[in-house]
Amino acid sequence: MHCHFFTTKWLIKMNSFGNRFVFTSFGESHGRAIGGVLDGVPAGLTIDMSLIRRELDRRSGRSSESPAKENFAAGVSQRAKRETDEVEWLSGVMDGVTLGTPIAFIIRNQDARPEDYEWLQHNYRAGHADWTYQQKYGIRDWRGGGRASARETAGRVVAGCIAKQLLRLKGIQIHADLVQVGNETDPNRFGEVIRTVQTEGDSIGGIVRCTITGVPIGTGEPIFNKLQAELAFAMMSINACKGFDYGTGFEGIGLKGSEANLISGGIAGGIADGSPITFRCVFKPTPSIAKMGVKGRHDACVAIRAVPVVEAMAAMALSNLLG
Amino acid sequence: MHCHFFTTKWLIKMNSFGNRFVFTSFGESHGRAIGGVLDGVPAGLTIDMSLIRRELDRRSGRSSESPAKENFAAGVSQRAKRETDEVEWLSGVMDGVTLGTPIAFIIRNQDARPEDYEWLQHNYRAGHADWTYQQKYGIRDWRGGGRASARETAGRVVAGCIAKQLLRLKGIQIHADLVQVGNETDPNRFGEVIRTVQTEGDSIGGIVRCTITGVPIGTGEPIFNKLQAELAFAMMSINACKGFDYGTGFEGIGLKGSEANLISGGIAGGIADGSPITFRCVFKPTPSIAKMGVKGRHDACVAIRAVPVVEAMAAMALSNLLG
Amino acid sequence: MHCHFFTTKWLIKMNSFGNRFVFTSFGESHGRAIGGVLDGVPAGLTIDMSLIRRELDRRSGRSSESPAKENFAAGVSQRAKRETDEVEWLSGVMDGVTLGTPIAFIIRNQDARPEDYEWLQHNYRAGHADWTYQQKYGIRDWRGGGRASARETAGRVVAGCIAKQLLRLKGIQIHADLVQVGNETDPNRFGEVIRTVQTEGDSIGGIVRCTITGVPIGTGEPIFNKLQAELAFAMMSINACKGFDYGTGFEGIGLKGSEANLISGGIAGGIADGSPITFRCVFKPTPSIAKMGVKGRHDACVAIRAVPVVEAMAAMALSNLLG
Amino acid sequence: MHCHFFTTKWLIKMNSFGNRFVFTSFGESHGRAIGGVLDGVPAGLTIDMSLIRRELDRRSGRSSESPAKENFAAGVSQRAKRETDEVEWLSGVMDGVTLGTPIAFIIRNQDARPEDYEWLQHNYRAGHADWTYQQKYGIRDWRGGGRASARETAGRVVAGCIAKQLLRLKGIQIHADLVQVGNETDPNRFGEVIRTVQTEGDSIGGIVRCTITGVPIGTGEPIFNKLQAELAFAMMSINACKGFDYGTGFEGIGLKGSEANLISGGIAGGIADGSPITFRCVFKPTPSIAKMGVKGRHDACVAIRAVPVVEAMAAMALSNLLG
Repeated sequence: MHCHFFTTKWLIKMNSFGNRFVFTSFGESHGRAIGGVLDGVPAGLTIDMSLIRRELDRRSGRSSESPAKENFAAGVSQRAKRETDEVEWLSGVMDGVTLGTPIAFIIRNQDARPEDYEWLQHNYRAGHADWTYQQKYGIRDWRGGGRASARETAGRVVAGCIAKQLLRLKGIQIHADLVQVGNETDPNRFGEVIRTVQTEGDSIGGIVRCTITGVPIGTGEPIFNKLQAELAFAMMSINACKGFDYGTGFEGIGLKGSEANLISGGIAGGIADGSPITFRCVFKPTPSIAKMGVKGRHDACVAIRAVPVVEAMAAMALSNLLG
Repeated sequence: MHCHFFTTKWLIKMNSFGNRFVFTSFGESHGRAIGGVLDGVPAGLTIDMSLIRRELDRRSGRSSESPAKENFAAGVSQRAKRETDEVEWLSGVMDGVTLGTPIAFIIRNQDARPEDYEWLQHNYRAGHADWTYQQKYGIRDWRGGGRASARETAGRVVAGCIAKQLLRLKGIQIHADLVQVGNETDPNRFGEVIRTVQTEGDSIGGIVRCTITGVPIGTGEPIFNKLQAELAFAMMSINACKGFDYGTGFEGIGLKGSEANLISGGIAGGIADGSPITFRCVFKPTPSIAKMGVKGRHDACVAIRAVPVVEAMAAMALSNLLG
Repeated sequence: MHCHFFTTKWLIKMNSFGNRFVFTSFGESHGRAIGGVLDGVPAGLTIDMSLIRRELDRRSGRSSESPAKENFAAGVSQRAKRETDEVEWLSGVMDGVTLGTPIAFIIRNQDARPEDYEWLQHNYRAGHADWTYQQKYGIRDWRGGGRASARETAGRVVAGCIAKQLLRLKGIQIHADLVQVGNETDPNRFGEVIRTVQTEGDSIGGIVRCTITGVPIGTGEPIFNKLQAELAFAMMSINACKGFDYGTGFEGIGLKGSEANLISGGIAGGIADGSPITFRCVFKPTPSIAKMGVKGRHDACVAIRAVPVVEAMAAMALSNLLG
Repeated sequence: MHCHFFTTKWLIKMNSFGNRFVFTSFGESHGRAIGGVLDGVPAGLTIDMSLIRRELDRRSGRSSESPAKENFAAGVSQRAKRETDEVEWLSGVMDGVTLGTPIAFIIRNQDARPEDYEWLQHNYRAGHADWTYQQKYGIRDWRGGGRASARETAGRVVAGCIAKQLLRLKGIQIHADLVQVGNETDPNRFGEVIRTVQTEGDSIGGIVRCTITGVPIGTGEPIFNKLQAELAFAMMSINACKGFDYGTGFEGIGLKGSEANLISGGIAGGIADGSPITFRCVFKPTPSIAKMGVKGRHDACVAIRAVPVVEAMAAMALSNLLG
């Protein structure tokens, strides 16, 4: 094993999101802990611990609030039952109130079952990042996906909750929903579609739609840091997300100018116009499927658990623009 | 008129793209000049002036190299005939060779016809950024869109050409094409579709597909700065771009995991896997249409002129990751 | 000549100062122009053109306002008489009022006398950056120092004037003075000291002291971006500056805690405490001296012309922290 | 208590150092832990744990390697005996080898004796940041200085050790020494001077000199990010540092150009010239002194414990420029 210091060219800052509301993420899925540091959170905010609990449960598929809980259960793995995701606050908070200093938190990895993943030490899974990590770094934590595991998004959800709290103080609300599973667009039938692919030992993709209301007119920078560019960057950073659109998007490709002009999407010239902002993200099917002999615990439709992550990333992107 | 220093919260760095290969853009469409500063270009590169000439012509719709020139002519305005876009190099280049110092260049705005735009001083166009600029800044250069004009993209094309040269030295090629106009996907029929909407005094959207080959395995950062996130950010910063996807994208929503696993899109876990990278961008119809009584010179299908801008932004995004 | 793209590791963003009030500098001393782009200036500010005229004159040694003009004349070269430094505004300003968009400006290099510098093409001057530039980039604009020329600071002065205007709106004033020339601390004798070294074909260093009043309590970030760290960075980026101190500084090394506690320097824990902030910068003697046979036009004491540059950089550093 | 979200303007990224080799610091002195996240460390480096142990001991005043241990003991508080500073690695390291992913580590605060600090809840210490923190944030962790405590520098030392390891691979060595205590410059007499001020219930300042050898020619950016500016920024971010100089510095103010030209300081035009780089930092006396009735555990000369912090910050600044 050699040190890549001399050979690599990609030593850019790569694990932080934002430059004013800054979230730095760390941790491998089966190491000591995953976690993050939030910089730029103002002082005096009482953190809503129950919101964080709720959102972590949504992410891990145990939410009791899901409007279609019974339908979605099929799409969520057994993994959910064992993940407890307790947040340990290391700094930046005193008696539950933010100090204006960096907020560091960790979630310990209690469910380490390396024997489930040992075969990965010398194998690369199709559709996963195993091989590219190995090529890029010359080494990887192969246990359960390591850094590339979707477990990393738990930290994003914690940070996103604090962002949401700040946005609510400004009257901004964010809400995302699963609106399509495969070709199915009727939510009443999502559960059925997912159960079917699961029975086949296969998986299926989905589309999440997110609506943001109350964004102050003027938010977003007109040239490169357009509001839609910041949102697209945030969404495309989520595992398995393969596309982003807003306003007329890909769906509206058949519209003429006289029709498209009636749809603002909440943004003009990169700047919020005060109306609701709606965007969509498409998530591919999970690549780990029983059909192909991949062991471990997998979701039939990862888009379900992506919903709170979409909200969290949107909240961070907006907090960063407004911070 | 008041100074926004006390009231605004959005004074973030907003007119630069990248942090290693850095392009800073400036200029209003009908001010003295538009232009840019390129920082991070290595010393010793002989700038390919003919490439820049060719790409600027593609952007302004006068390219003689377009494979379907006769068809596309319909979609490009009379404006093209008058734009000469001469680049004046101010610094960073000696005898055509880069010095390693910042490269500043300008393109003077020779075609100032303020009388065409005077009505805009007190009017806001639908689908344009006139109103949001006014709200954000409390002032705007109303002549021809000012800072929000697509003319700003000429600077991006110049910078993109230098990025392309650097990438070619590494064996990386970028090529974009218009692949859909409205619902039409047969390139032989694009001209016809465009002529029809033009006759109606209307406009139409389009989809541009871009393919990048030769990207070194390992390019892209695995968490937030995923290769696809950097590309999405770059594309969504282009005027009129309403969506981005890659790999299975929105089109592949019906695929199951067992099928989707066969499509890499050139990226795994945010990191290039060495195979060609293909992505798509959707552009809305231009909002300025004769049907609605908007004067001035307009394209019936802005996606045509967006093609070289897509390539330029892709080149800059990659140069920044590799720089 | 080869392209350094493959060999260098230092392609970081290097010609911009600040991340909220951002000044990007460009230009070689004997190229087409020097100039800059200012990003993050709020809209609605009427630029004080006479302030810029005055400050550029101070920098070029032609100021009529200098309290000891007659004394300082000796320290300033003949170069001053020929530099006119006319600012041409390219963007971001309409009718003298800022638009909130990037402000690009240039100062053309009218006084190009390459014959004065031709010998530099194949020679490296002691104490100058000729040799290190050549090593770093493998190429350099050798005419008159190129990018390393102190002429680059004219752009900083222009940007600094706009920063000063913004600061004044917040009640912040910045004032710098030359307080020491060589070992002489009596301003009445500065002229004499300088004339003496000039007669000897030699040069002499000096110390500039700067005082800032009205900085809001709370300005500065407590860990890395301490107010003193931001100021030190700004000052040490000025050509020929060899040291920075504030508060008790190097002078107060003999003080005990019980004495030093009485001197705040305006900053505690990196954060402004509301009292005046005073710091010092030391400038070395210009290395180009007649004694060593260096041709060209040189100042006997560059610290004189550094005074407005110190103010400009302090103004930019503060605007960036407050922006 | 209110949320500062609406009122503050200083929400910039503030607890990270560097943009390529990035250290994010967190933690209050008497909270759960202090620590940091290191981003940009290449994969494949075996961390030298004994170096970290040694450097942390130097910082806490327990080093057995100090050349003048017996003399310095007088200047170091009883605090040292109780600080164990055990580093817990949370991520980015597997079997002691770096993964290329962010390295998070913590040092738990085992020695919490809040009763020593309770009086601080309603008092502000002279020369400390208590008051400015309270003004800036409207809240503070008053226990033992909280975020402003010098304990924060333990994290810098850990990160600096990893930076040093990387630099050694490139042949770069960093060494700092205490060279002056008060007006005393003879190291043999430092212990005596310190014991005297300690007996008086007072404290004394000092000067640390640091020498860096083996820096590749070309390191440093010529305009704003000059090597000396990056070093000055790094040093001035250390608690109690009141000044920085290099080359001729403040000491050489009496030199003429013909003399100063002989002293390079290792940098020309902001770029390393290959010769050793030497700089100095001055540290004020600790403001907490028995004479003024300040309880707690204090050093008579904080400059002693600053020595390894100076080395750590220099190592990080260089790693960032070279990374």
